Amino acid sequence: MDGCTILFKPQNKTIKVKKGTSLLEAARKAGVFIDAPCGGSGHCGKCRIRILEGDYRFEKSLALPDADFEKGIRLACLTFALSDLVVETQEIKVVNEVLVEDVDPGEEEEGWINKARKMLEDSGIEINSGFEKIRLTLDPPTLDDNVQDWERLCRGLATKCGSGSVRCSLDVLRRLPGTLRRNDFDINVILTRENDDYEIIEVRGSGEDKPLYGICVDVGTTTVAANLVELESGKIKESASAGNLQMQYGADVISRIIYSTGKGGLAALKHAVVEGTVNRLVEEMTERLNIHPEDIVFGVFAGNTTMAHLLLGVEAANIRLEPYIPAFRNHPPLKAGDVGIRINPDAPVFIVPSVASYVGGDIVAGVLAAGIWNSDENVLFLDLGTNGELVFGNREVMVACACSAGPAFEGGEISCGMRAMRGAIDQVTIDDRTLEPRYSVVGGTKPRGICGSGLIDIVAAMFMTGILDPRGKINTGLKSERIRFDDILGVYEYVIASKDETEDGRDITINEIDLDNFIRAKGAVYSGISTLLKILEMKVTDIDKIIIAGGIGRGLNIKNSINIGLLPEVEEEKFTYIGNSSLIGSYLCLTSRGAREKAKQIAESITYVELSAFPGYMEEFLGACFLPHTDMGLFPGVMKKFSRRKGI
Amino acid sequence: MDGCTILFKPQNKTIKVKKGTSLLEAARKAGVFIDAPCGGSGHCGKCRIRILEGDYRFEKSLALPDADFEKGIRLACLTFALSDLVVETQEIKVVNEVLVEDVDPGEEEEGWINKARKMLEDSGIEINSGFEKIRLTLDPPTLDDNVQDWERLCRGLATKCGSGSVRCSLDVLRRLPGTLRRNDFDINVILTRENDDYEIIEVRGSGEDKPLYGICVDVGTTTVAANLVELESGKIKESASAGNLQMQYGADVISRIIYSTGKGGLAALKHAVVEGTVNRLVEEMTERLNIHPEDIVFGVFAGNTTMAHLLLGVEAANIRLEPYIPAFRNHPPLKAGDVGIRINPDAPVFIVPSVASYVGGDIVAGVLAAGIWNSDENVLFLDLGTNGELVFGNREVMVACACSAGPAFEGGEISCGMRAMRGAIDQVTIDDRTLEPRYSVVGGTKPRGICGSGLIDIVAAMFMTGILDPRGKINTGLKSERIRFDDILGVYEYVIASKDETEDGRDITINEIDLDNFIRAKGAVYSGISTLLKILEMKVTDIDKIIIAGGIGRGLNIKNSINIGLLPEVEEEKFTYIGNSSLIGSYLCLTSRGAREKAKQIAESITYVELSAFPGYMEEFLGACFLPHTDMGLFPGVMKKFSRRKGI
Repeated sequence: MDGCTILFKPQNKTIKVKKGTSLLEAARKAGVFIDAPCGGSGHCGKCRIRILEGDYRFEKSLALPDADFEKGIRLACLTFALSDLVVETQEIKVVNEVLVEDVDPGEEEEGWINKARKMLEDSGIEINSGFEKIRLTLDPPTLDDNVQDWERLCRGLATKCGSGSVRCSLDVLRRLPGTLRRNDFDINVILTRENDDYEIIEVRGSGEDKPLYGICVDVGTTTVAANLVELESGKIKESASAGNLQMQYGADVISRIIYSTGKGGLAALKHAVVEGTVNRLVEEMTERLNIHPEDIVFGVFAGNTTMAHLLLGVEAANIRLEPYIPAFRNHPPLKAGDVGIRINPDAPVFIVPSVASYVGGDIVAGVLAAGIWNSDENVLFLDLGTNGELVFGNREVMVACACSAGPAFEGGEISCGMRAMRGAIDQVTIDDRTLEPRYSVVGGTKPRGICGSGLIDIVAAMFMTGILDPRGKINTGLKSERIRFDDILGVYEYVIASKDETEDGRDITINEIDLDNFIRAKGAVYSGISTLLKILEMKVTDIDKIIIAGGIGRGLNIKNSINIGLLPEVEEEKFTYIGNSSLIGSYLCLTSRGAREKAKQIAESITYVELSAFPGYMEEFLGACFLPHTDMGLFPGVMKKFSRRKGI
Repeated sequence: MDGCTILFKPQNKTIKVKKGTSLLEAARKAGVFIDAPCGGSGHCGKCRIRILEGDYRFEKSLALPDADFEKGIRLACLTFALSDLVVETQEIKVVNEVLVEDVDPGEEEEGWINKARKMLEDSGIEINSGFEKIRLTLDPPTLDDNVQDWERLCRGLATKCGSGSVRCSLDVLRRLPGTLRRNDFDINVILTRENDDYEIIEVRGSGEDKPLYGICVDVGTTTVAANLVELESGKIKESASAGNLQMQYGADVISRIIYSTGKGGLAALKHAVVEGTVNRLVEEMTERLNIHPEDIVFGVFAGNTTMAHLLLGVEAANIRLEPYIPAFRNHPPLKAGDVGIRINPDAPVFIVPSVASYVGGDIVAGVLAAGIWNSDENVLFLDLGTNGELVFGNREVMVACACSAGPAFEGGEISCGMRAMRGAIDQVTIDDRTLEPRYSVVGGTKPRGICGSGLIDIVAAMFMTGILDPRGKINTGLKSERIRFDDILGVYEYVIASKDETEDGRDITINEIDLDNFIRAKGAVYSGISTLLKILEMKVTDIDKIIIAGGIGRGLNIKNSINIGLLPEVEEEKFTYIGNSSLIGSYLCLTSRGAREKAKQIAESITYVELSAFPGYMEEFLGACFLPHTDMGLFPGVMKKFSRRKGI
């Protein structure tokens, strides 16, 4: 027998796997969540576990410090079962409690919704979901009027609403005879109309006068957020969010695409997001509102292009292979039942169309919500999530690009990085004279790591206090116990929190490798911005408005972001935070057929710029990989501050 | 433990059932076919079995003679398991060998096909299935032409065939990226077009230059017959037929509808016809032709209204409840995958529309094939199958009715009746003087029973020789050992074959109860005809042509049918046999989109007459329940013959 039974604690879940299987793979199969941002390649060091019983084989990795190794900690992706095992997982408590930042629709989001709805109406777009409940009081059949049930329904519909072709699923037809007779032929027909064609989603008795519901879902690489909406009134009745369960297959789209090309990979990723994430959110919201999932008759989904593919189980491999061609932008008519979304199986599904492989429907939804398509001013739209996407333009022209920023702004590829959840250092200052840091922690607990906004603050503070030079190297001439040399990695680091302050007894530091990764990320964003400006032959001063969206957003310190050259130096009042613009845009698509058409137009009208193929991009990027930039003239204000401080 | 394990021999199939379950029910669950024309109500006496081991409870029935009971024979529907059992089934050998008359497409059917195709073309209807294989040689994508796969396909289609909305299933979309790249973007798109809308069924590499296939299926209550057709050429490549596996739930539509209303009944009946019958025929034909079932991209089905409902799993209960309203005539667009037909799951399915509850798509297909819709002459169309349906009219007007003839013409409700399969007495004469019969047997074996055409001959011969009086009573004054009294039933009978001549050692007889049933059946047909004539204010002499279809057909003796007053007395050259007109019509629908439209028009234009509600019908029926009729003036020729014989 080659099988090993693995028992995961504290979940008490067991799974039988082949001898030699990695424990990360075993955990995925057992439905035990182990965070693995790098997708199980052994280099992020996040999938920490401890073996309590049994034999295993282990490969060492620089990502696991010796001290931890001696404590019995292993990386799940590099540990392979040789016998039955009992495994303690470290991360699961966090996942169950507060995997992600709470994403209640904030006030600013509601404000944006109202603004966007008004904008749509002002440009002649009706706020109408396109889903209707038509009451038909049909004549019960007699020997003389012996028209069939389906034909009787179609006749009633034609009389009331005008004739047209009528479609419905076989299940609707199957239930029709019973529904008609139980309700004395007095019914409500739930349908959607396209030109003269009716698509019937459900037939109910007229007595069952329930509202029609829809869901809009932002399918983020990291976080999935959903609203349950009453379609007629547009009221958001429930909201919920959860970590995208695909995270166990990697933090970013590239590692997920790679996983999807392996045997069963595509199905596993689809299952993780549809069954493991979206359907759980639907369940949660419908239970809270005490309605049946079948009452949800429409679903709108916005995500990046890879998420859209994986949601449908469509091959995503070509997204990362030149010439980077997605399988679809728009999609043929789909129903929830086809996709596996557990709402009404006949509910149509609309996936907000994407621009290109790396500018997806989430960005199109964001542009719809941010109103760039209707703006006379020049708007720069930044979505800083697991990746960074940019759109710049106005009602006449829009250009977009994706920055290969990686997950740094969510703490990825940073040794002590983490997402903005409990225990994350999210705001930092450093005292000019003592070089001692002060920080705040999400949830007010002991710190466990640093999230994106914390990183921006740290880098800015290190730079402004002279700890960092413009190339991101630590000034080793400074006298501070916080600055020290890491023998193993052979680089300098700065200690933000020492082990006696932290939750897990490990120092929280930032080293020169982290700094390098981070600066490349911010350089990618800035050079993306400057390339888009260049294409439209504009300058930083031509930007009238900067709208920031995405997971990084709310805690972002604008001044610090300018100080390090992540964001262009424009007046602070030009910046706005829009919140989850993908969710706002998908809400608009849910509640307005016209908005869906507008989203299609936006996706088609945005010009996608493939940065890696754009002449001169590489110089732009290299210039932006300094603090704040090699061309200091772009940051006059920063220069002034910096000189002043240096002068002290 | 209340479970009993039942072992059926010779199939060696076992099933565990609850104590007290009938053996008919157990056999159905075990997938063992036991013929049960009455649906298990204990009165047909056909579900004969023998218990080899175990305890059971048994209810007696007049349908099982004492002699058989003493031999250990029981009726499966009235035998209930009390312990584990070993059961020998009697009928299964017959089922496996020659359940039904072979239904190869006869020459006359091919003739009718050609005639009908010509007629369609002459009336401006194109013989074109509406299914196309479009070769698209797409430009492979580049960084500059980075249009998505689906949009690229749509663009290619618009360029080649004109723009329009394009639909496909999620599965087609899922396979698209791989198919495009494996074939260097050189593909064949299999699609169907409706106005400007394309429905893509499959995308193949252009190298896979396989023909497109379709199937047309006549879903009979008793027999299911299918053709596998090459769509472009219209060539019939394979044919197959089998008994409708629903027969184990009852011989006629009424007993099946009743069964369908019980728990799980509808699903069982759907499964029996779709999985147990149609899919097996598809498998048989595709294996013989060595093609993949997925290569079949279209399916057309014609059946009576009940069969159409059961095929889709749609509630059929209202068909038999006044005012007799089917769930549908036409159906919304359906795919094979929805219905469970194992051809290409995205293949559209067309079910020939029905006229009313008891005049179904099989009759509409028959009218299409027989060309009544295009005839200047007055045509009477008779389908004598498990039930009898009639259509009378011409290109201007058509009326139709269903006769409650029951299954007598297939041997049902007749003590020694059987379907026209091996062992059936199919032709009979009786010597005037000796009153001795001469008969022929299907397959040339010893006789086992009498089929429809045999019954007609027997009744005609008994009547013409004076054994029967016009009321169907046996003339007991005649001196013949063939005529005898049945003590148990209390009626007279005529012995056609004595036990030493027969296969199972039982006398084959016809008694006065059988005769009564048979005469009521022929009376129902004749009174249906005369009612239709009356509605159009015509007489028998106005009939220009009589086209006979259905299972009874080929062996039918026209003269005898007139002699007993089943068919109206018109010149013999006015009669034609069309064969399986339902299959011919469904073939026409398969190969011509215009024929499908025509079938819809026919279904709408035929006026259905509900005989039971028609004033004066009852007198017509009672008059027709004589041999040949109470109004002898309708049968002058028969009268002449009869008087001459009596005179001898």
